[in-house]
Order: sequence, then structure tokens, then C-alpha cells
Amino acid sequence: MNTRLLTLSELLPENVDAALIISNENRRYFTEFVSSLGYLLVTRKEAFLLVDFRYGEAAQKKAKGCTVITFQNFSETLQKLIRENYLHYIMLEGSTFTLNEAARTEAIINEVNASAIKSAELDKIISRMRIVKTAVEVDKIRQAQRITEDALTETLKLVKEGVTERDLALELEYKMRKMGADGISFDLITITGKKTSMPHGVPGNETVKSGDFITFDIGAIVDGYHSDMTRTVALGGVDNEQMRVYNTVLQAQQNGLDAVREGVTCGFVDEAARSYIDQAGFQGCFGHSTGHGVGLEIHEAPAVSPKSDFVLKSGMVITVEPGIYIPNKFGVRIEDMVVVTKDGCINLATMPKELIVL
Amino acid sequence: MNTRLLTLSELLPENVDAALIISNENRRYFTEFVSSLGYLLVTRKEAFLLVDFRYGEAAQKKAKGCTVITFQNFSETLQKLIRENYLHYIMLEGSTFTLNEAARTEAIINEVNASAIKSAELDKIISRMRIVKTAVEVDKIRQAQRITEDALTETLKLVKEGVTERDLALELEYKMRKMGADGISFDLITITGKKTSMPHGVPGNETVKSGDFITFDIGAIVDGYHSDMTRTVALGGVDNEQMRVYNTVLQAQQNGLDAVREGVTCGFVDEAARSYIDQAGFQGCFGHSTGHGVGLEIHEAPAVSPKSDFVLKSGMVITVEPGIYIPNKFGVRIEDMVVVTKDGCINLATMPKELIVL
Repeated sequence: MNTRLLTLSELLPENVDAALIISNENRRYFTEFVSSLGYLLVTRKEAFLLVDFRYGEAAQKKAKGCTVITFQNFSETLQKLIRENYLHYIMLEGSTFTLNEAARTEAIINEVNASAIKSAELDKIISRMRIVKTAVEVDKIRQAQRITEDALTETLKLVKEGVTERDLALELEYKMRKMGADGISFDLITITGKKTSMPHGVPGNETVKSGDFITFDIGAIVDGYHSDMTRTVALGGVDNEQMRVYNTVLQAQQNGLDAVREGVTCGFVDEAARSYIDQAGFQGCFGHSTGHGVGLEIHEAPAVSPKSDFVLKSGMVITVEPGIYIPNKFGVRIEDMVVVTKDGCINLATMPKELIVL
Repeated sequence: MNTRLLTLSELLPENVDAALIISNENRRYFTEFVSSLGYLLVTRKEAFLLVDFRYGEAAQKKAKGCTVITFQNFSETLQKLIRENYLHYIMLEGSTFTLNEAARTEAIINEVNASAIKSAELDKIISRMRIVKTAVEVDKIRQAQRITEDALTETLKLVKEGVTERDLALELEYKMRKMGADGISFDLITITGKKTSMPHGVPGNETVKSGDFITFDIGAIVDGYHSDMTRTVALGGVDNEQMRVYNTVLQAQQNGLDAVREGVTCGFVDEAARSYIDQAGFQGCFGHSTGHGVGLEIHEAPAVSPKSDFVLKSGMVITVEPGIYIPNKFGVRIEDMVVVTKDGCINLATMPKELIVL
């Protein structure tokens, strides 16, 4: 087993003999092997990666720290491993197994007189392992962020009246991938005009118009690691109300960033950003959390949400992304991604945040 | 309620008062509203779509056949609906709820003295509704297929020594989206040389070389509907072994297509393709199923797999995609997508299948 697998095997709860992991990200985290299907069985002594015919050859070459088994019949293969390794209690990954998958797997496990443990415990253990990033992981996130910024800088040159939201999304993605990204972190949000009041609006055939805000909530993936950044820019010019909202979000975001350091709670960071927005008279216009962790998934622990008493530690990577959304008018969001340090944070975003008017 | 929601409410099992649906595809199927999160509660009388702040405004405008509720607190909102509608037994969508989500939701439901029913029944009901496509749905799949073929035709012009697998994947995706696709059906497979022996190889920095096969397993999405096609082409030329394998797969695929019609089993179609490959001396080289259903998801019912006794009906859309994979040498797969009819099938793919040597 490699270090991560060893750590997991040591952290298994006392009443458990093995963990059965099926999430793509967790299989990748533990074995470095990328696939869209597979089962990682981690006992106290050994780890087995079960893959089907499609992945067998590649897994043999690339999977680390585990014994690769290419199965013809999953039930028989799992049952053989349970018997040979004297496993009695097998914990299922509760955040990934669906009810149907769990029922099928439990039936397979029960047939050889073993039991499936269904709880959220395994997810918590793995989440705690993944939440603090190594330097190598931060470096991949930073590379993804560099690509995101470079692609946005290039794409801003294309913004003019008549360009569609979809065009902007497509150009951004094409550029990111040309620059070496594995892909995009999520469906890119490139929305304009009234649609900016919808935090998760979907880019459509609407065209950019002078006087409008354009929200870019975008990110790239490098080696499985995600980046996440939001910039709101304007075309032509903005009126006083737009400017006031923009500057309120900008200061709220800075207050959020200033609050980040090892030892403070996520609720403290959220409150730092949120209270400024509320006090500026925009109560009810910031309906989502201030941020979230980022890594092998675009949304992972910790949630930087109101009243959270989760305490930040050095090496965690989180976003700080307050916004103000005024229905049927417009919205503004500004988002950076930072690494928590002993006395503050390192901002992985370097792109300016003063309002860019194109 | 619209027709689909009415049908579902009538198909609810007798012991159930409501269904709770969370899959993106099923929410879209029933309400036409697209979002990455939301809860669709379908009672015998009414349907409620619960969305958070991010989607509230958009859902009010676009969701069909249901009452949209934007929740601040999901637990309270769900509990209020359970009480007001006198719901006692609520069936959870077993193919989508994870163990953790189900446990949280069950606790919320239990607090108001109602019960969560966890079984695969709801999924089966919805799958049976979705499996036969309407003319409108087939038309969207056909549009996605047109884009896929047009993009491949254009991309084949770029194939020459030195082009990387990743370049090919990126160009294909860019072209598909420029042509109006919402996105790609799955991570496009554009692999070459020895990697073609891995049915689900991931495009990398490997370059195309003369004498190599190149496998394109690709598809686009239009209005949520997927397409799926595989073509294997060659650069420069092929040797006798490659040609023999190619022609074996080609004939096996034709045999599979010839077997498709209303009333036959999926196992019959699989066997028609598989037996030809086996009899040609390639036993053990075709390790996956012959095909699968396609629609709002790239893989949906029915599975066209060995020995399946599932009977095909008119209006089902399935793939026929046998392959031969010779480890450390090469592989060939050819795939079309067809609509089942009374006396055969309509092939949605029009791109030639005779070996193209570029």
C-alpha cells in the first residue's frame, strides 16, 4: 500500500475490516488511476482495485499501491476476496453508493456471511484526509488557476456587442484545453444582463450589450485538480447603482479574504463578507454561502457557510465568493481561491478585481 | 400536472403517496427545467419542484406542470408539504439518492411521522416511461447524431502524423459545440495505436502514426439528448491482420443491426454480433456488451447484453457496438445508434463504415 492507503487502513473504525470505495475521485486519490468505474477494497493489510475488462490493461500499468484485479463477474470476485481475507464487516462509501447499488452490494456481501456497514463515517475519514492539500496538490490547483486566468484574459478581448453567452463559454473552454487543461471544472457560467441576477444561470443565445454586467464563473482541471474563479466585468459603462453594488461586493470579498487564517471558523469568514453586504443595505440579496473547499472535486469540504463552526487549518484550499443579486436587474459576484496559512492565506488568483469596463 | 407527471402519479405503487425525485435527468424529463440541484415531489394530485435560491427565478419562468417552491430551509419546506398534502409514504429514487442523502432525507421525513420507502421500484417505473422515445425525442437524438458526424467528417481532415489524441478530442468537441451541441455526450474517446486495445482508453499526448488504427467513440448532446457513435479509421495503411479484424467487426456489427426489431430480446441482438466474432476465432476479445439505450443519459435501459431476455419495442433507441481488442496490439469497434421499429430498425448513423484509410 502507498502512504494514503496505509493511512486509510489505519483510520478504519475498530468494528470494520475493510472499506469499499467507488467514487471516481477517491479511487484516483488513493491509487492515482483514473477510470469512470471501479471498486477499491481496502483491508487492514492490502488494497485491491477491481476493474472491468475496459480498464484492466490500463489499471495494471498505472494503479499505485494496490493489487489490480480484472473481474468478469463482480459478485464472485468480491466474494472470493471477502473469504480469502476473512472480512466480516465491510463499510460502504455512503456519499457515493446509491440506495440501489448499496442494496445489490449488500446482497453480494451477505451471501458469504459478511455484513455491509452503511454510515457516513468512511466519507468523513476520507474527507478529512483530502481536505488538507499537499504542496503537489496545491501546485496542480495553481496550474489550473493560471490556465483559467490566461484563458479569461484572452477571451475578454472577444467581448463586444453581439457576442453570445454560449460563444464566450465555448471560447473559454477551448482556450483552457488548448493551454493544457484536462477539462473544465464545471459548466462554465458566462452570463450577461439580467441573467447575472441568477447565481447559476446557464449560458444561452443572449448577446452582450453595452451597459451590461458579464459574470464569468469559470475554472479548469489539471491532473484532476480544479480551480474556481469569478470575475464580473462590464461593457461600455455602468450606472451608479451598478457601481455601488460592485464596490460593495468587492469590499465584502476583501473582508472575507482578510478573515481567513488557521484557527478561525468557516462561519467567521462567511460573516466577515456577509455582514458588510447586509450593512450596506443588501440584506436578502446574498443567498448562498461565502465559499467551499476545492480539490479533486469542485465542491468539497469545508463549506464556508453561515454559522459553521468548522475550524480552518493550514493547507486547506477554499473559495471566497460573496455576491449581490437583484432579481430582474443584475448581479455581481467576485471569487478568489486561497490556501489557508498560519497567519492568513495565499491568494491563488492574481487577476485584478477592480471593475474592468471593456 | 403535464402528461408525463400525470402518468407517473398514476403509476405510483398503491402503498405510496408520493415520489421524491432528485436526478437531474428525471427532473428535466418531467418538468423541462434544467438545473444541477432540485427536488421534485410528485403526489397523486400535484407536483412540486423545490429549488434553492440559485434556481428560483429561472425555475419560476421555465418549469412545466409543477408548482415551483424556492426554499430557504429544505427540511422545513419538505415537512410543510408532507403535512399539507397528508403524505405518509414517500418513495425515494433509489438510483440517485446516495446512502448519506437517503439517511438525511429519511430523518426529515420521519420527523413529521411519515416514512421513506427505499426500493428500486420508482426507478423502474421512470425507466419504463423513458425507454420508449417520442418522435420529438428521436429528433433531438438525430440532431445530436448529425452534429457528431459533421464534426467527425471535419476532424478527419486534420488527422496526420504528429497530431495528438488530445488535439483530436478537443477539435471534435469545439466543432460539435460550434455546430450547436449543448456539450459532449461523454469524455470523447480518440485513441490511437496500441491504446485502441483499451475499449475506454483516455486520449493523451500520444501522436497519430502511419499504420495505426484511430478509434473515435464520440457523441454530442442536443437539448439534453445524447448521441453515440464509434468509427475506427486508419492512417497510411493497414496490414492483413488489422484488415481481418476490421472486417470481422464490421460483419458482426451488421449481424447485430440485422437482428434488431420489435419483439426480439436484447440477448438475441447481442448473440448475433458476438457469435460471429467468436466463430471467427476471436473468443475472449470482445469483453463488453453489444449495446445500450440512449436518451437523456448516454447509458440507459435497455442493456443489450449477453443472455438478456429483455424484449425490444418500437421507439427504443439502442446502440450496436461490437469490438475486438487484442492487448498490446490494437482494437477495433464500430458503433451505430438505431431506433427499433416493427420490422427492423432505423439507423440514425449515416456515416460510412467501410474502413477509411487516411
